[in-house]
Order: sequence, then structure tokens, then C-alpha cells
Amino acid sequence: MATPDLKPSDAPPSPAIVLQSMLERARTAHRQWTRDQWAHRETALWAMAEAVRRHTDAILAANAEDLRQSREAGLPVPLQNRVGLTKASVDRLAAGLEDIARLPDPLGRGRGMKTLANGLRLESVTVPLGVIGLVYESRPGVTVDAAGLAVKSGNALLLRGGKEARGSNQALFAALTEGLSAAGLPTDLLQLVTTGGREYVQAMVSLRGLDLLIPRGGNSLIRWVQEHAVVPVIETGVGNCHVYVDRAADLDMAVHIVLDAKVGNPAVCNAAETVLVHEAVAPAFLPRLEKALAAHGVTLHADAKALAWLEHAVPATDDDFAREYLSLDLAVGVVPDLDGALAHIAAYGTGHSEAIVTDDYRAGTAFQAGVDAAVVYWNASTRFTDGGQFGLGAEVGISTQKLHARGPMGVEALTTVKTLAWGSGQPRDL
Amino acid sequence: MATPDLKPSDAPPSPAIVLQSMLERARTAHRQWTRDQWAHRETALWAMAEAVRRHTDAILAANAEDLRQSREAGLPVPLQNRVGLTKASVDRLAAGLEDIARLPDPLGRGRGMKTLANGLRLESVTVPLGVIGLVYESRPGVTVDAAGLAVKSGNALLLRGGKEARGSNQALFAALTEGLSAAGLPTDLLQLVTTGGREYVQAMVSLRGLDLLIPRGGNSLIRWVQEHAVVPVIETGVGNCHVYVDRAADLDMAVHIVLDAKVGNPAVCNAAETVLVHEAVAPAFLPRLEKALAAHGVTLHADAKALAWLEHAVPATDDDFAREYLSLDLAVGVVPDLDGALAHIAAYGTGHSEAIVTDDYRAGTAFQAGVDAAVVYWNASTRFTDGGQFGLGAEVGISTQKLHARGPMGVEALTTVKTLAWGSGQPRDL
Repeated sequence: MATPDLKPSDAPPSPAIVLQSMLERARTAHRQWTRDQWAHRETALWAMAEAVRRHTDAILAANAEDLRQSREAGLPVPLQNRVGLTKASVDRLAAGLEDIARLPDPLGRGRGMKTLANGLRLESVTVPLGVIGLVYESRPGVTVDAAGLAVKSGNALLLRGGKEARGSNQALFAALTEGLSAAGLPTDLLQLVTTGGREYVQAMVSLRGLDLLIPRGGNSLIRWVQEHAVVPVIETGVGNCHVYVDRAADLDMAVHIVLDAKVGNPAVCNAAETVLVHEAVAPAFLPRLEKALAAHGVTLHADAKALAWLEHAVPATDDDFAREYLSLDLAVGVVPDLDGALAHIAAYGTGHSEAIVTDDYRAGTAFQAGVDAAVVYWNASTRFTDGGQFGLGAEVGISTQKLHARGPMGVEALTTVKTLAWGSGQPRDL
Repeated sequence: MATPDLKPSDAPPSPAIVLQSMLERARTAHRQWTRDQWAHRETALWAMAEAVRRHTDAILAANAEDLRQSREAGLPVPLQNRVGLTKASVDRLAAGLEDIARLPDPLGRGRGMKTLANGLRLESVTVPLGVIGLVYESRPGVTVDAAGLAVKSGNALLLRGGKEARGSNQALFAALTEGLSAAGLPTDLLQLVTTGGREYVQAMVSLRGLDLLIPRGGNSLIRWVQEHAVVPVIETGVGNCHVYVDRAADLDMAVHIVLDAKVGNPAVCNAAETVLVHEAVAPAFLPRLEKALAAHGVTLHADAKALAWLEHAVPATDDDFAREYLSLDLAVGVVPDLDGALAHIAAYGTGHSEAIVTDDYRAGTAFQAGVDAAVVYWNASTRFTDGGQFGLGAEVGISTQKLHARGPMGVEALTTVKTLAWGSGQPRDL
């Protein structure tokens, strides 16, 4: 097949041709690695971590240039913040690779052999998915996390990051492939798309032959990829997360949990976007919540019942309850009881993370049973839904779907099973 | 929402409205069942088996009428055979429900609790997917198998079977819902689409709100569903399965395995469609294979090298190697070595079931490692890829994709996980 540098004309190669060529290289390298039983993974991860640390200056210089261009282009400040790296955050990325290296090997694990009555033996063992595509937006740290998880799980990876972080991604990628190379692995296992804009995202979703495509970023990117992809997709990350304050809640704890879930890092998918309050405790709780959140500049968008107990809230529309703000805004609703909270969450939730604050056993267990989401918290903040917090080393995304993987996706989410069978010529039918 | 019987006009309700109404009823019944922790599943399965047995006469009468109409409509005989039921096969379906009842409970299983340093406890437990849609073709037995697996795994099910088996499906469905009812479960958990033709398949793939859609049937149905579905789909069943006869094969065993894999039941997805032979044993093996298969009326479609050793074979085209015959036809190719076999299978295989016949350890292990398929057999027939054989009681389909489920899909494939978290108000960031 034609590779870009072999094209006879001077016209730039089409995105489809560039990506097809990258996929072929990744696939070829992966086949070779499969024959070698995906060897040297841990060594490669340690070498990747070392190379990221060693090239910190180059990475930060590239990042400073990305940030300069972002500022010039008038990128909103929250987006700029996602692009930005520091010496400490680069070090954390390297430490994440080391954490991943230390995880137990996700490959070659069996569930226990079965032997059929005729002596045929069966065992299903975990194997890599193959070549995975990742389309992501501004955070350059995703490049490192995804590469680490892919290498640990024996997968090749095609990366298409956001243009705001192009230089940072290239610098990180150079370090990562240097690590692969130091461990004797083909650098073709990792491929970074560095050219072009949106047309490369389009080409990526049209790329037949990927074993999995993961979109990571805003709602519109994820929807678009899901609707147009020709290969299996795992939906990630849209989090319209709720905290329900039950009538039996410890109200101090409830204020504390909402504060953490809203203010800790409002720009992320596990931040709370709506608080639902049992009407019996609304008069006592809402004024305290308002006071605590006002100190952090949070705007409350309240339904009619909640407005009665809030001084500075603005009226909420239906859209406020449906939105993922990702900002210092919080929707507030009053519900008649637990069933009201469950119905609200069933209508507006995105299946990400939901929390109840209560000291009542029946309310807590009914909430955990009745909410259909990846993670359901009882007396804790939704902010814990995170690969690092869950002990996965990092995450390639947080699945909000039910198939294959649900919640933070670590190395296990990047594997499948293959059933091996050993016989002695026994027939099934003859 | 409008239900069909409430429509003011006399016009028949649209397929979309009929299905939306069925989905709502299934969802409502499922929510109630979820609150009840999916109780009475085993009782229901035993009652369903009992009812199927008790209504055998009515089921066989409906089936006879389906068959009469199929013959009148000129349906091909192999298709007629798929529709047909006997007293023995109805009994086997009932016994399958009992097997499913005896399986360990797939719900509420944890992986082991984690406790974070701050005391937050996490456990991921298996839960049902929710409401599953199944679009299938002529075999009425699928109705029973799918209903049994859905009930065992706590799911509601929307069934759309083939019109050739409409009466049989209705009779089986009546028995199944009688069983549900006897166990005190809402019959709305099972929904059978009995009206209309292809437009109901179209409406089913357009139905938002299903948690999973499984197409089960021929290649064209599966492709069509996959391309048009608006909810997650699991690809099933297309099996272009190979048997590779290595240079170190026991040739008697190889003949026996190919015979079983081709002739045992040629109409199913785990039947072999191609035999690949190492060139060193082609002269000794192919004449013996031809003789054994000729007795069963198998037509061989051979490549140029294989033709040299076969008397009655016809020349194979590339299409012969790409096809799933599902008939007494077999493609035959000669390969220079194991790598040639692996390359052929990578090019033409559908990721279903592949087999090697060899007594050479290195060849067998290299084949099992190098083939990317759901099940890889060493000295056994591909025909074992089957839910019943694998000890799953039955199967809702055989997944040929890598995500979520791979190979025969039993009750575990119909579950997802929910992570439950118990805290004491600890914050993540504050």
C-alpha cells in the first residue's frame, strides 16, 4: 500500500492515506510483538518514565510554546489550563508510568480450565485487543497515560490529540518512543498524528481495521465519534453527576461532600453538577450550602422549591438540570423523597457517578440498588471516580456505557479473551 | 406515551410506536424487578421449563402450521429444517432452561473489595444490562434459549423472531410467560414482536433506550443491524472457520476432525468452511480427505496446488475462501508452512473458531498464539464452539467481536458491573 513519502505528486497525502499507513505500521509491529508474547512491557514502561523525566525541559519548552499560541489564538482560560504542564505534573506523569509498570500483568490470565466429558480442555485467557485508536482533546497528559496503559496491556496505539497541545504531545511522544526503543520494542507500536485539523478526526473514525476507538473529551466530540465510527467505540466521560442529600443526611457531611464534588476541580467529568435535596431538610440545608459555596464563587441554579430557601440563586430551567456545566455553577432541586431523587437521576443522569448522603441504611441501600450508573457513592464525593484513585495507575477514559468496561478504564479494559482448546481428535457429532 | 390500543384512528400503529410501547412496558417491569433485586429467577426458569413441556402439543401444532406455510411459500429446505421442531427438540429446549436454572447466579458477584488509604471502600458487583433486544431469524429455539438466559441474568428482553417461525414463537412465548407468571414475575419482562415484516427490524434498530441489541442470523442481517443500530450491538455468528492440517498432523485424526467440522452440521456457524494443508503432507492427506468427504456428498473447491492431488474437486476462486458456505461445500488450500496458514486465516477468517491438527508442540502453540479468534482448537473440531458444549446452558449468540463478550454468550455476557462505594464524608481535594 502507498505510504505518504512514496507519493509521486507534490500534493500532501490525504488524511485517510496517512492514517491507513500509520495503522499498517502499527499492525505490523503488533503482529511481531504478538509472536514475541508482548515481551519487555515492564522494561519499556520504566524506560518511558525515565525518558519523560530526562526530557522534562524539552517537554516544558514545547508546552510553553503551545500555551503562547493558545493565548494568541484567544483560547478560553479553562482550556489553556488543560494544556498547561509544570515540572511537577510532568513528574507525576512519569510516576504514573511507574505505577502502571508495577501493576499485575493483565495478559495471559485464565478463568480456570474446564474439561468436557469427552476430555476436551478449554481455557479462556486474556489477550490484547490489538490496535486501539484514541481521539482526545487538549490535555497532553492523556498521551502519556494512554501510551502507558496500552503498552502494559500489549496493545498498539494510534493517538490523535488536540491541536492546542500539538508541540507538547510531540515532545512527550518523542520521549515515550525513546523508552520503547530502549527496551528493544518497535517504536511503530505508538503512532501520533501530528498534522492537520478536524479532517484527521474524520479520517480516524473512518479507519476500518482498528480494534477499538476511544473518544475522550467534550460531549460533542464523543457524540460525533460515536455516530460516525466504523469500528467499536467506547463512550467516555460525560458526567452529569448528582449528590442527593437525604432526609437522614448528616448535613455537615453533606455540605462538605458537595463542596468537594463541585469546587475541588469543576472542569472534570466526575464533578457534581446537581444537588438534589429531600424536602424535609431543604430549609436547614440549603442556606448552609449557599453560604459554603458562595465563598468559592459558585452560582446556584435552583428550581422553584429550592429558590424559597436560597438568597442569591437564579431560577433553573430544565436545561440546567440536563447540562454538564464543568464550571462553578450548580443546579439545585428539591425532591419529595428518595424515589423522586431516583426518578430525577434516571431522567437526567449520564450513568457516570452518583452520590447519596444519608445515615439511613434503607435509603442508602435503595439508592445504590436503584441508580443505574458506573459508580454509586454512599457518603462520599463523586470526585473519586478516577483511574488513579481506583488503583489503576491511570485511565484511558471513564466509560459511561455498560458494555465491555464501565467506569475508569485501566489496563483490563484494553484486553479481551481468547479461548484455547486442547483435544485429542474427539468429534462432536460423528 | 401513546400505546397502540389507545390510538384514536383506525390506522394500524406504526412499528416505531408498537416497539416503543413494548420497550416502555419492559422497562417499567424491569425497574420494579430491580427494586426487588431480580428475585424469583430460578423459580421462574423451572416454571418456564415445566410450561414448555406441558404445552408441547400446542407448540408442535403451531410449528407444523409454520412448516406448512414455509413449504407453500417455497422456502428452501435447509431453512425449513431450521424452523422445524420435534417432541425431542422441545424437550431439549425445556431441559436447557433447567440447565440454566442450575447455573451459578451471575448477579451480585464482586471482584473483591478495595479500601483506599482514606478509608473509602469500593466493590464492583455484577448487575443486569437492563432491557436487551434480540433480532433473529428462523430457529424458534432461540426464543427459549434467549428468554432463559435473560431471566437468569435479570434482564428484560424484546424478541423479534423470523416470520417463518411466527406461530412457533408465539406458542413458545405463551408457555414462557406462563412460567414467569407462575413465579410471580411480571410477564412484561418478555416481549415478543409478532406482527409485520422487515419494517419491524428497521424499527428495532432505531429504538433508542435498549441497553444492548443482538442480531443473530445470517451475515446480511448482522451487517445491516450493525450499520443501522442506534444502541450498542454485539456482532454474532458469522463463522468462516478453518482447519489447518500441519506437516506433523496425525492424518487419520485430521480426516476425522475435518469430517466432523464439515459434515456434522454444515448449516451452523462453527462448521469448517476451509481446510488448509501443509504442502509436505498434501499428497498423502488430500486423496484420503477426498474419499472420506465424498461419502457424504461434499464438494471440494480447491486452489491450484490442492487440485493436483484431488480427483473431483472444482477450482476455487478467491470468493470460495471468503465465503461462509453453510452447506456441503469445502474450500481447500495448500500452504507452504504454518506462517502461510496464519496469513490465510488473518486475511479470510471472521474471528470465530480456528483449528490446527498437529503433534508438534511448537506448531500448536504458535498457532494458538498467532490466530486472532474467539476459540483456537488444537487437535479438535471447530464444532465445539457452542454455549451448551461450553457449559453455559445455552447461548444468546456467538460473539465474533472482541469487546464485552467473545465466543458463546451465556448469562455472564448479559451482565455489566456497578461499582458501589461506601465513605464517611472524606473529601478528595479539600
